[in-house]
Parts: sequence; structure tokens; C-alpha cells
Amino acid sequence: MTVAVVGATGAVGREMVAVLEQRRFPVGELRLLASVRSGGRTLTAFGRDHEIRPAEASSFDGVDVALFSAGSETARVLGPVARDKGALVIDNSSAFRMEPDCPLVVPELNGDDLKGHRGIIANPNCSAILLCMAVAPLHRAAGLERIVACTYQAVSGAGARAMDELRRQEEAERTGQPLEHSVFPKVIAHNVIPWVTGILPDGYSVEESKLRDETRRILGLPHLPLTATCVRVPVFRAHSQAIHAAFLRAISPEDALALYANAPGVRALAEGLPTPREVAGTDDVVVGRVRVDRAFSPGLALWCVMDQLRKGAALNAVQIAERLVRS
Amino acid sequence: MTVAVVGATGAVGREMVAVLEQRRFPVGELRLLASVRSGGRTLTAFGRDHEIRPAEASSFDGVDVALFSAGSETARVLGPVARDKGALVIDNSSAFRMEPDCPLVVPELNGDDLKGHRGIIANPNCSAILLCMAVAPLHRAAGLERIVACTYQAVSGAGARAMDELRRQEEAERTGQPLEHSVFPKVIAHNVIPWVTGILPDGYSVEESKLRDETRRILGLPHLPLTATCVRVPVFRAHSQAIHAAFLRAISPEDALALYANAPGVRALAEGLPTPREVAGTDDVVVGRVRVDRAFSPGLALWCVMDQLRKGAALNAVQIAERLVRS
Repeated sequence: MTVAVVGATGAVGREMVAVLEQRRFPVGELRLLASVRSGGRTLTAFGRDHEIRPAEASSFDGVDVALFSAGSETARVLGPVARDKGALVIDNSSAFRMEPDCPLVVPELNGDDLKGHRGIIANPNCSAILLCMAVAPLHRAAGLERIVACTYQAVSGAGARAMDELRRQEEAERTGQPLEHSVFPKVIAHNVIPWVTGILPDGYSVEESKLRDETRRILGLPHLPLTATCVRVPVFRAHSQAIHAAFLRAISPEDALALYANAPGVRALAEGLPTPREVAGTDDVVVGRVRVDRAFSPGLALWCVMDQLRKGAALNAVQIAERLVRS
Repeated sequence: MTVAVVGATGAVGREMVAVLEQRRFPVGELRLLASVRSGGRTLTAFGRDHEIRPAEASSFDGVDVALFSAGSETARVLGPVARDKGALVIDNSSAFRMEPDCPLVVPELNGDDLKGHRGIIANPNCSAILLCMAVAPLHRAAGLERIVACTYQAVSGAGARAMDELRRQEEAERTGQPLEHSVFPKVIAHNVIPWVTGILPDGYSVEESKLRDETRRILGLPHLPLTATCVRVPVFRAHSQAIHAAFLRAISPEDALALYANAPGVRALAEGLPTPREVAGTDDVVVGRVRVDRAFSPGLALWCVMDQLRKGAALNAVQIAERLVRS
């Protein structure tokens, strides 16, 4: 198959190429596309060098699968072009996520929503994937009634430039230089910032709103009460979430661990403390500290960690492609 | 007055000395006490050097006020000794916090609980002080019904050794050496750990349980449903909390800001993002991102930051002493 990766030089794009390789996706020709300024660079994949080409309409001639991770603007312009040229488009931006005729899919949870797609599939927000993977097995058994989620999000969620910003600030602090910031609205080194990509007029951040809206759509619970505080932390890779969930029917921590044992893509720990350092670079959502909630009855409290560049972005996109290619 | 600081070489003890100085507490003689291994060192305070002496029973002869920050064991042994010698004991450990005849006090909130004390006053856990300072003004107006709190706690909450551990790990990472840990159960550099001093048999951490039990006691709400996830983050100083609170009566973000305007010790921001870097070294609890909660109705979501060495420990202890000395 001819596969295009759009935004191939970004943090998610590079991970998409790595996941395609690792999962032996049937790639005949690989086209690595990016903005004009990345043109001319090369990336090694599938055992050979690939030139990065500027993404434009003609880039998609003959493409079977196009994995987009180049932001909403590029997706809105080039996504329909690629689709009209016959490519299956899987887009990691928020451009199409809330469009009713565009499926928003976590394959383990709502893969059936892919049926009847019109050529463009939306890959959900990483925080929504983490939350849905953690609560869906419990919801099927006990019925979700309400969720409070607080996030601890790695800087790589804001791209490679954000990782550089954290590194530069730490170096500046160490050498007594002034700390500068441009990606984040405050210094992130040795700090936490309750701001993930902008604050909306109602006081919620863009991420907090995506987390609610996309979780409702993926779980098929359009009225689920769901509140969140999304916070950036000085971690390079892997997002964490503290989840406090109320259910309609009784569910114990032991029940939850038994349900997770049969949940693909989730690894639950009866003991131990999952942390981003250990989960970075791995595929599963890791759930720990499963306990009876003290504010909700019946309810459970969970601590969940996921590499947001893998299951939160690149891996989920490739899993969608695999599922569609198989069918 | 003769004032003793027990644990004077620790992170909180040093801050206690600084706060006594800054607030011009009427100190005639200052006795800086610590463990035997700290003996012989000196600290400068009130314009002169003070020798650190080992804390023992005779240290408290003639002491008027004894500020303890030396752990529960020392407090249990020497607290009653100091009290019996006539000192007013204010203890920052958890030794006496849940004893019914020992007041647990945040002066702005329940200073009246000091009446009839028996010589030992407990200074609350820092996370409980932050949570109570943030929700008490709202509770008085609208009645708290339920709280979910997730914390982002600085390493200095675990003492000076924990700050050194973070610094050493960052240096090791930078120079390609192995990362070692002993204060925390995992590496804290570029990581977050959902563990604040131990996990109890019910799955909650010690901090999460203190946060619930002490908040209930300070607010006088012994049955308040309160759940928490307490997490250590690689920040040196100042704790943050995401608070999602349900109320019995209607309360809007505008109502909350008006209530905070009259709440001593709280500074609420109608706009802006409080972060630990900016709040470190200051006295107020800073509240931001006040918004209508999406899971609770009526409810509010808040983001709150406080220097836990100051209002969360040293400042609160000195404020208790000031109030008792005045009366």
C-alpha cells in the first residue's frame, strides 16, 4: 500500500512512522510530507532514507492511507483533497472530531463506528483516549454516572518545540540565565501550568472541553456530566490522569481489576505506582491505585498513565488504519 | 518572649525562623533546637548567630512558645514535656492533629477553636490548609456538599533532602549517570508520582487521608464526602490543587470572587494562571480559574496554589502563636 504521513517531522509524525515499522504495516511506498520549511530533509524508515516533501494536493496521487498529524488548518485544506483522490484519511487534529459524519474512534472501544465512514476518520484527543480506555470497561459493567478527571500532561503533547523549551529553561536555570518561554504561557521548568492550549470564554481550557466532548462521543454518552482540570507538568513524555468516577451500579476495585484483565490495551496493577517515566515508549494504558471513591458511591478512584505519543496519537491512528485495511 | 524552634535545620524549621523575623514576633530569646547530629551548627536570625542545640527536656526550661517541626516521634516525646514546663506548643507534625482535646487550627477559619486549649495546638497538613482556605469562604455562603481534590505537590513538602534528591537526579540525567532515589519510591525528575508518604490498606495514601480527615475537622463537617488523589511533581516549592466542589445552594464564579475579596489570606484572580513558581515565597493562597463545574450543579471548579512552607506550615504556626499571645 502507498502510505502518506503528513507532518512527518513532528513529534507525533515521527512516532507514526515508527509505529508503522514496528507493527509491520503493509507499506509498499512511504511518502513523508511536511511543511515547505521541512522540505529537503530526510528520515530513515523501513531500512532506507526518505526525503521529506512539502505536502500539496499532488502528494496524494495514488495514496491508499494518509495519516495526518499536521494541525487543523492543514487537515481542513488537504484532508478532503486526499480523500477525494481515494485515500483513507486518518487525522490526528481536532478539525473533524465533532463532525457527525466523521467517526471519532478508539478501536478497542468503538471500532464499529468506522462502518459507513466517508473517507475521513478522526483520531481522538490524547487525554480523551486515556480517559475512555480507563473508564469504558467499567462503564460497560456498572454504567458511568459522573466523572471528575485531573490531568498531568507531558510537554511532548505540545510538540517537539515544547520539549526544547523545557530543556532550554532547565539549562538557563542551571547556568543563571533568564528563563524564556514562547510555547507555554509561563515557564514550565520546575512548575505546573493549568493551561492546555488556551482558555475559552466559559473558563474551561480547550483541552478540558475536548476531553468532555470527545469522551461523551466515544462512549456514546452525550449527556455524561464530566468536569476536568488539565495541567501541563515538566515531564517529557506520557500523560497521567487522576480519575474519580461515579457509577449507577455497584462496582468494587476487585471487579475493576477483573474487568481490566479482559480489556485489550489496558494493563491494570493491583499494586504499584505507574508513572510517566516507566510508561513512556510503551503501548498500553496503565491503571493503578484502583480504590473505592470517597466522594461517589458507588464510585472508583483511578490513577492512569499512557504514552500520549503512542496510544494517545500515533498507535491509535495506525490501529484505525489496520482495522480498515483488514475489512 | 522566649521562643524555641524544634527542627530548626529542616525546610519548615528554617522558614519558621524567617517568618518570626519578618513578622517581628516579640522574640526575646530564640532557641534553635534540632537532632543531635545537627548540634554545633549555627544559623543567623534576628541579626546574630544562634547555635543549634540538641532538643532535650531541659531545652524547654523558661520557654514561652515552642514551635515544633521535627516529626511525629519527637513531637510525641518532647511536646508534652515542653507543655508541662509551661510552653505553648504548636506542632507541625500529625502527632496530635486528630486528638479531640488538641485544636487543629487555621487562624483565618477556625481560630475560635483555640479557646480552652490544653497547651498543645496542632498545625494542619499543608494540603488541608490549602483546600480549607480555598473552600471555606464558599462553604459559608453556599454549603459544601462534596469535594474532589487532586494535588500537584512540591518536593520541598518532603523536606530539604527531597529537594536535594530532585537536583541530584537532574544532574545525573544531564551527565548520563544512573538516577538514584531514596526519599521517593520512584525517580521524581521529569516524572510525577501518585504517592505522598505511603499507601494505606484501603488504597489511599497517607496524605489523601490526612487531607480528608483534617479538612472535615477544620471545617466542622465530619461527614463531608471528600475524595483526593495526591501527587508529587518536580516543582521545588509551592503546592497546587485542582478542586471540584459541589454545593447545597447556588453559587456562581462571580459570587466566589466577591467572597474571596473579603477572605483574609486568599487572593483570587478573575483572570490569569497562578503557578507555583510565582506563588513560592509569598503568603497568600492564590485561587484562579474559577468556573462553573461541569459535573456538579451547583458546583465550582478552582485552581489553587500556596507556598506550603509558608501558609502551609511556618506562617500558619506563627499566626497561631500570634493569636494566642495577643489573647
